[in-house]
Amino acid sequence: MFFKMAPTSLAYRFRQSVAPTALRSYAAEFISTFFYVFFVVGASIASRKFVPGAAATDPSSLLVVAIANAFALASAIYIAANVSGGHVNPAVTFGMAVGGHISVPTALFYWFAQMLASIMACIVLRVTIVGQRVPSYVIAEEMTGFGASVVEGVLTFALVYTVFVASDPRRGPCNAIGAVMVGLMGGANVLAAGPFSGGSVNPACAFGSAIVAGSFKNQAVYWVGPLIGAALAGIVHDNVIFPTENVDSFTGVPEVVAV
Amino acid sequence: MFFKMAPTSLAYRFRQSVAPTALRSYAAEFISTFFYVFFVVGASIASRKFVPGAAATDPSSLLVVAIANAFALASAIYIAANVSGGHVNPAVTFGMAVGGHISVPTALFYWFAQMLASIMACIVLRVTIVGQRVPSYVIAEEMTGFGASVVEGVLTFALVYTVFVASDPRRGPCNAIGAVMVGLMGGANVLAAGPFSGGSVNPACAFGSAIVAGSFKNQAVYWVGPLIGAALAGIVHDNVIFPTENVDSFTGVPEVVAV
Amino acid sequence: MFFKMAPTSLAYRFRQSVAPTALRSYAAEFISTFFYVFFVVGASIASRKFVPGAAATDPSSLLVVAIANAFALASAIYIAANVSGGHVNPAVTFGMAVGGHISVPTALFYWFAQMLASIMACIVLRVTIVGQRVPSYVIAEEMTGFGASVVEGVLTFALVYTVFVASDPRRGPCNAIGAVMVGLMGGANVLAAGPFSGGSVNPACAFGSAIVAGSFKNQAVYWVGPLIGAALAGIVHDNVIFPTENVDSFTGVPEVVAV
Amino acid sequence: MFFKMAPTSLAYRFRQSVAPTALRSYAAEFISTFFYVFFVVGASIASRKFVPGAAATDPSSLLVVAIANAFALASAIYIAANVSGGHVNPAVTFGMAVGGHISVPTALFYWFAQMLASIMACIVLRVTIVGQRVPSYVIAEEMTGFGASVVEGVLTFALVYTVFVASDPRRGPCNAIGAVMVGLMGGANVLAAGPFSGGSVNPACAFGSAIVAGSFKNQAVYWVGPLIGAALAGIVHDNVIFPTENVDSFTGVPEVVAV
Repeated sequence: MFFKMAPTSLAYRFRQSVAPTALRSYAAEFISTFFYVFFVVGASIASRKFVPGAAATDPSSLLVVAIANAFALASAIYIAANVSGGHVNPAVTFGMAVGGHISVPTALFYWFAQMLASIMACIVLRVTIVGQRVPSYVIAEEMTGFGASVVEGVLTFALVYTVFVASDPRRGPCNAIGAVMVGLMGGANVLAAGPFSGGSVNPACAFGSAIVAGSFKNQAVYWVGPLIGAALAGIVHDNVIFPTENVDSFTGVPEVVAV
Repeated sequence: MFFKMAPTSLAYRFRQSVAPTALRSYAAEFISTFFYVFFVVGASIASRKFVPGAAATDPSSLLVVAIANAFALASAIYIAANVSGGHVNPAVTFGMAVGGHISVPTALFYWFAQMLASIMACIVLRVTIVGQRVPSYVIAEEMTGFGASVVEGVLTFALVYTVFVASDPRRGPCNAIGAVMVGLMGGANVLAAGPFSGGSVNPACAFGSAIVAGSFKNQAVYWVGPLIGAALAGIVHDNVIFPTENVDSFTGVPEVVAV
Repeated sequence: MFFKMAPTSLAYRFRQSVAPTALRSYAAEFISTFFYVFFVVGASIASRKFVPGAAATDPSSLLVVAIANAFALASAIYIAANVSGGHVNPAVTFGMAVGGHISVPTALFYWFAQMLASIMACIVLRVTIVGQRVPSYVIAEEMTGFGASVVEGVLTFALVYTVFVASDPRRGPCNAIGAVMVGLMGGANVLAAGPFSGGSVNPACAFGSAIVAGSFKNQAVYWVGPLIGAALAGIVHDNVIFPTENVDSFTGVPEVVAV
Repeated sequence: MFFKMAPTSLAYRFRQSVAPTALRSYAAEFISTFFYVFFVVGASIASRKFVPGAAATDPSSLLVVAIANAFALASAIYIAANVSGGHVNPAVTFGMAVGGHISVPTALFYWFAQMLASIMACIVLRVTIVGQRVPSYVIAEEMTGFGASVVEGVLTFALVYTVFVASDPRRGPCNAIGAVMVGLMGGANVLAAGPFSGGSVNPACAFGSAIVAGSFKNQAVYWVGPLIGAALAGIVHDNVIFPTENVDSFTGVPEVVAV
């Protein structure tokens, strides 16, 4: 019975992953991630137009990128929240999968939609904004790759933990402020770490801009730290601070409403 | 019967368009669009006072315009939401009309109120702020008109899609955060595209400032892309991501409450 | 009977104005106005520390003052909303009195609390922040007093209209976003008009800083326009856009809950 | 009877202070304070990378630190609110203890968690961000220690008063905006006082950065004023503006929900 159930359950989970509701989730993740990356990378290009250089080199440029991040992340999560849960970030999806909140097949489709959206957004920026190249995330010269990855991991812990708090069904329907809070955390991330580790906190954004910029230097920094940080955030949230004894576990496309 | 009904329906719709409730809607759109344009164009003049030049030429000026956009758009939508739905933008009205959420006669009155408000706001700015001219939106020298129109269209898709999500009656009465989210999207628009396509995303704002500045160069950029983007946003929202099978269609002045 | 009632009613209103609930209202207005003025004038001094000059002379200084205004106004209204209605501004109180939402004796006590708080805040700033003088609001050299007063009046109309929308009891208890919206409007005010008319929009703030700075030049600009704009905003709100046929009029200390 | 009860009650309170719910509170305070300090001190280091100097020396740097403060404080409070009440600040905990909202043993554990988190955050920043030193809060040269302490005390009064308003159980479950308001107050604090007293308003943040920077000059400024201001804020809130006649007093780990 057990051996028979396992594949059935897997097939069931896969069927759930291609149901119309699930396809709408992937489309919603695509739309939200496309706009998030378009605004964040676009703001980075915009701030560079005035102040040539490899990375944000004055406090005003840092503010431009950080505020674009906060504004774009909050609104991108908001417009997807009721459909896909509003991940907009492979690290969030990873943390949700590790915590058992979405099934692995669904998570893979989410990742695919997010990565495709990020690459498309960077291509549109490169084609339309003539005369400016798409920047990839870089770490400060004095930083080690390990140190940068630790910083990105700490930042991603903060972001994913906030997403878990905002998505907690125990918060009830009045939790309209969740998407804003995740956006504020994203903005604070950039202000604190932008000039050092780059402050990506989003592997899709780092990957898409690296593809279009053609530079994969230190790309691992934007994957290793964030994925570890995201998994830890979910584990700490679900088991230590907000133990889930009285919440029904669920798989497949999440019905979690963050907004 | 059918042929008889059609004109009756049209006449009925027109009568709805001049009912007291509808007139209040146009007045609300006028007030909100007036203040939105007053603050956005005013902030653009203010940032130019210190840094002479044709367009935002440093990150701080970009921030001034972007934050004025976010703050003014959120509050302008908020104060009109319960009366007119808080469009404050001909592209939003166009998307709502394409999606059948407001009737064509009503949409035309909305457009008239929005355009008149924008022109009046720019005239008041020109008359009171002596020694500074009202700027019109311009695209960067290296941009093509087509590329700029694509960028404005992408930005308008994001903005109008967010308005559709915020106005969705299925969100319930607790959706107090909708107006803020549209404002954040508007601010992100400017941060990403301000130095390239101008980041207008609002044909009324572009038209009013062009009228008072006396320069209609590239004006089509601020109409073609945004109207196409707005129509697509409404279609994608209503048919792909949030299909409307279980929502009563409505015409005439919208009863949608975004806040 | 009528003649007898009138003085009784006046006496009744006055007794209401000195009841414990009313005294708490005045104290709440004092606290909120004190902090609003402390933060706005303090931010103005702070931005001037780096960039010497008579007024905000670069976009970054403008942002410092505008964001201080938005943050301080939203939180100052929030902490007083459930007690006094969160006016924090004599122009708001004036508009509320013209619209019959608070009685004239109560409005006078509100004004007194607001003016006293503003003067006290500027004195504390002057005493503690050694080596910097408290700045008074000034209009740009090229502006006329009449033009500046029109600008301040337009800005105050926007602000007070937003307060009326946020305080409308028909909004229901979920209107938690009202204080934020008034704050955003206040920030947009400064971004658009700071370098021209000063962007005070608050007679108490302008008066307190003028007292401590010892300069009353153009003080009328910060009273005439704002009071006219505030009265018009209340009249337009109550009679044109949101007619009050089905709301009980009330006098005395307002029970209006904006948050 | 009385003498017997007192130690029993004390033992009971202590047992409450080490119950699983209480331990989760301390962990939540640790997480939130860690991220708050990480972002605020990180943003301070980031703004200094471009503009060398002892303290914020231009308006843009001031904005970076102020907005990091607002964003980080709001989201840090939000993620802890439902567990620990979201103090994130020893001054808030002190005000809550003085007002009898949490027991003294619990307050001491809160303090310990907050101080430890602040020191850890500064250590992680120092280790990972090579080539930049962790800054400690300093007061402007022209300020006296007494004046700076008064300013910090006034700012802390504003912050703690806002926390008390946001935590008031009479606000009901719809008070989702409370954490945002405290964050806005924190941002306004920095904009007004950053260049003068430092704008810490948080003894844990000042202490942790002083430990890692190795400089305790003027450390008393960040303790004396804030603790007095916090106690006064709680007393004024509970006894003058919002008298607590009809609220059950409670001790032990607070069940107060700010969000």
